[in-house]
Amino acid sequence: MSDPSYVAVDWGTSSFRLWLMQAGGQVLGERRSDEGMTAVAKTGFAGVLQSHLDALGVTADLPVVICGMAGARQGWVEAGYIDTPAHLSDILKGAVAVSGQARDIRILPGIAQRDAAAPDVMRGEETQLLGALGLDKAVAADVCMPGTHSKWVRMRGGTVECFATFMTGELFSVVARDTILAHAVAGAEQAVDGDAFRAAVAEAFAAPALAANLLFRVRSRQLLFGGSAQAARETISGTLIGIELAAGLTERERATPVTLIASGRLQRLYQMALEALSIPFNVMDAEEAVRRGLAVAASAIWKK
Amino acid sequence: MSDPSYVAVDWGTSSFRLWLMQAGGQVLGERRSDEGMTAVAKTGFAGVLQSHLDALGVTADLPVVICGMAGARQGWVEAGYIDTPAHLSDILKGAVAVSGQARDIRILPGIAQRDAAAPDVMRGEETQLLGALGLDKAVAADVCMPGTHSKWVRMRGGTVECFATFMTGELFSVVARDTILAHAVAGAEQAVDGDAFRAAVAEAFAAPALAANLLFRVRSRQLLFGGSAQAARETISGTLIGIELAAGLTERERATPVTLIASGRLQRLYQMALEALSIPFNVMDAEEAVRRGLAVAASAIWKK
Repeated sequence: MSDPSYVAVDWGTSSFRLWLMQAGGQVLGERRSDEGMTAVAKTGFAGVLQSHLDALGVTADLPVVICGMAGARQGWVEAGYIDTPAHLSDILKGAVAVSGQARDIRILPGIAQRDAAAPDVMRGEETQLLGALGLDKAVAADVCMPGTHSKWVRMRGGTVECFATFMTGELFSVVARDTILAHAVAGAEQAVDGDAFRAAVAEAFAAPALAANLLFRVRSRQLLFGGSAQAARETISGTLIGIELAAGLTERERATPVTLIASGRLQRLYQMALEALSIPFNVMDAEEAVRRGLAVAASAIWKK
Repeated sequence: MSDPSYVAVDWGTSSFRLWLMQAGGQVLGERRSDEGMTAVAKTGFAGVLQSHLDALGVTADLPVVICGMAGARQGWVEAGYIDTPAHLSDILKGAVAVSGQARDIRILPGIAQRDAAAPDVMRGEETQLLGALGLDKAVAADVCMPGTHSKWVRMRGGTVECFATFMTGELFSVVARDTILAHAVAGAEQAVDGDAFRAAVAEAFAAPALAANLLFRVRSRQLLFGGSAQAARETISGTLIGIELAAGLTERERATPVTLIASGRLQRLYQMALEALSIPFNVMDAEEAVRRGLAVAASAIWKK
């Protein structure tokens, strides 16, 4: 087994993931926690990172490359934005060094769409795109990246041409937790059997303007016809994903399949939704994508 | 001045309003509080009502007519639903007496749309419709009743043919308070100057599928271009009202003006939104409408 070569970190709003990497891209060790930017902004980024490095016995000479919200204004060190149309190689050039640290630590910038009619920002997803699609000039892809703030991205030859963020995941959280529908979903499991989810996706996709009504029907249906908390939860989720897909697919070209970059439960949900709508797609794992993107960055920065 | 004839109460989820009435419909006294169903379900309905009657010196022989959530399953006494197509005169027949009380107290039923494809319920709005449009066979109106849960109602000759509820007001509350946009609107006044509101209404009306993206742009716009908390708040409000109008107006006939039944701030907002879209409308005051509806009910029940 070769020695570790660098450390890769995906530091999001609410999660922290770290991998100890070999030059070839093999994973030698891993750490995960919920010490995201929001939690860490108060306690300090350097200490949290060091505690995870210590836990893996990482030596002081090993460099660290970070993507995500650690580079936001409210993060560790602001890493700015590359503007659209943004070639992903510019992300590599835009990495910012964290000063005053014993080891070499770099934070990758995000991407900004400085279009007054459709302003948008991403941090972390650009590194997933780099890992999933690379810098190949031949690549053309319409990408869906589900999450708290889902991204739809038009990629052409290593360039992010334009993108749009949808608050789908966050809307799901507040609707299921903080509105009158909280009663309807009480006790539901996170796992989905799928029928109510698929029906809701199709209905919202066909009539997105009805979204706020389709949500209220969850309550009316339970009052008048009964129905499980599970079905209620699936309907809320399907409605919000359905309107996201209606917009994402209207704005993109339909000829090519959608490239879905997602992991775990969200991957399964969006696959199910795209299948319900008979929309062709390819799947790439989001976690593998971000790790590969960080590997490309490490290799460019340190020639490793 | 004539003696008081009856007491009219609009008892909603989060508010209580009581009027001491003359037979002719004149208001002799009024009480308002935030003792809505949710707050009162624990402490008891009878005591709250009596305290307000005492405050106005109402004698023990005066009857009380109530509409709204006091008639819900979680309310005081369940008053059930009249099913669509629902002639408003059936609401008068469906009034339920509260037993075990010294005085005559009646609670009006709600309306249910027992359509498995579009289930819906209302409680309180049926009484506003009765007061605003009456039982006239010649009346045909497409009605918009803004609120926490906005209602769009198709009325034909005193009959509620069908209706749809939109969670617009509740979505606004949770989006502005519990999502990442809470930072963007912090410190905003409730009053609107209107420009950002009107622009958001038009944009969401034209492309309702983009709703979850239009909301996120509130944050991106502030990050990239600055912009006031006031504009952010107006944009969230305009986006949610814009998609409601897109659905409400798609489902209805466009030839006749919309009948807007609303009071205060919501009346001003929806007027502004309909004007921005050049949609003709008539306005009726919601509070006057419910009081008149309760007067019609009192007159039918007690021949007063």
